[in-house]
Amino acid sequence: MIHFEDLAIGTKERFGRYEVTREEVVEFAGKYDPHPFHLSDEAAAATHFGRISASGWHTCSMTMAMFVEHIHDTPHASHGGVGIDELRWLKPVYPGDVLSLETEILNKRRSRSRPGLGSVWTRMITYNQDGVAVLSMIAIGLYAVRDPGTPDDKTANRKR
Amino acid sequence: MIHFEDLAIGTKERFGRYEVTREEVVEFAGKYDPHPFHLSDEAAAATHFGRISASGWHTCSMTMAMFVEHIHDTPHASHGGVGIDELRWLKPVYPGDVLSLETEILNKRRSRSRPGLGSVWTRMITYNQDGVAVLSMIAIGLYAVRDPGTPDDKTANRKR
Repeated sequence: MIHFEDLAIGTKERFGRYEVTREEVVEFAGKYDPHPFHLSDEAAAATHFGRISASGWHTCSMTMAMFVEHIHDTPHASHGGVGIDELRWLKPVYPGDVLSLETEILNKRRSRSRPGLGSVWTRMITYNQDGVAVLSMIAIGLYAVRDPGTPDDKTANRKR
Repeated sequence: MIHFEDLAIGTKERFGRYEVTREEVVEFAGKYDPHPFHLSDEAAAATHFGRISASGWHTCSMTMAMFVEHIHDTPHASHGGVGIDELRWLKPVYPGDVLSLETEILNKRRSRSRPGLGSVWTRMITYNQDGVAVLSMIAIGLYAVRDPGTPDDKTANRKR
């Protein structure tokens, strides 16, 4: 089980494959983001999107799906997400696109109030099949510390 | 049609009603965020969530659903979202919760490179039925300028 101590600042990974289908784009947008330009090519043609594109929240959700699938085989002592900084929808995501994900651990810090937990800052960049970045964000996640008795400086390992 | 010029800094609104169902929480998490603690009460009991709670991305999506429904009757010249700053999942969202939304326009700025567009910063706070804030974020949206020939200072209206 991967704990806070095992996550090293500087670690970069590239993984994932998510095929974006028109059916899923329209279904997600219909439920959660029914702007006309996410639902019809005609309405999208009047905007800079040009044609139907995925809701930005759908792109976030597909990104999370790739991330969770990636860590599935090596269980993490995750206690969920604190939040997201600097989320940017850089380019539209269109039906037919195939997404992948790059992650980099930027920083980590033990919680002062809850010594059994620590926060980890991870930059996530989602790419399409042309290698174009479509989404960038910094995810802040909470992880369990394996040995809360260890001094903080012993767990702040940095990849060299 | 609401354009960039019509959006006044300082405008606050409170609206929306979204009933969170267990079925939808499990369906969304199963597709996009299948951490065990979003799928089973037993796994959630081992975390600070206590019981099944919604994926943070699901809470974002339900928030967007309330926002889009709210502006549906007064069409906005929206060109989609640029991104999100300072997204924080403040409290878990549980099946049975009823969400509502508060928005406040924090700032707006004409685009230098594309005079027909402007960015608007809106703080969104999602509340549960007990009035507890469960999500806070600053959404950056792009809107069409009604009259791109108007000098920028004429469109930077501020609510008094």
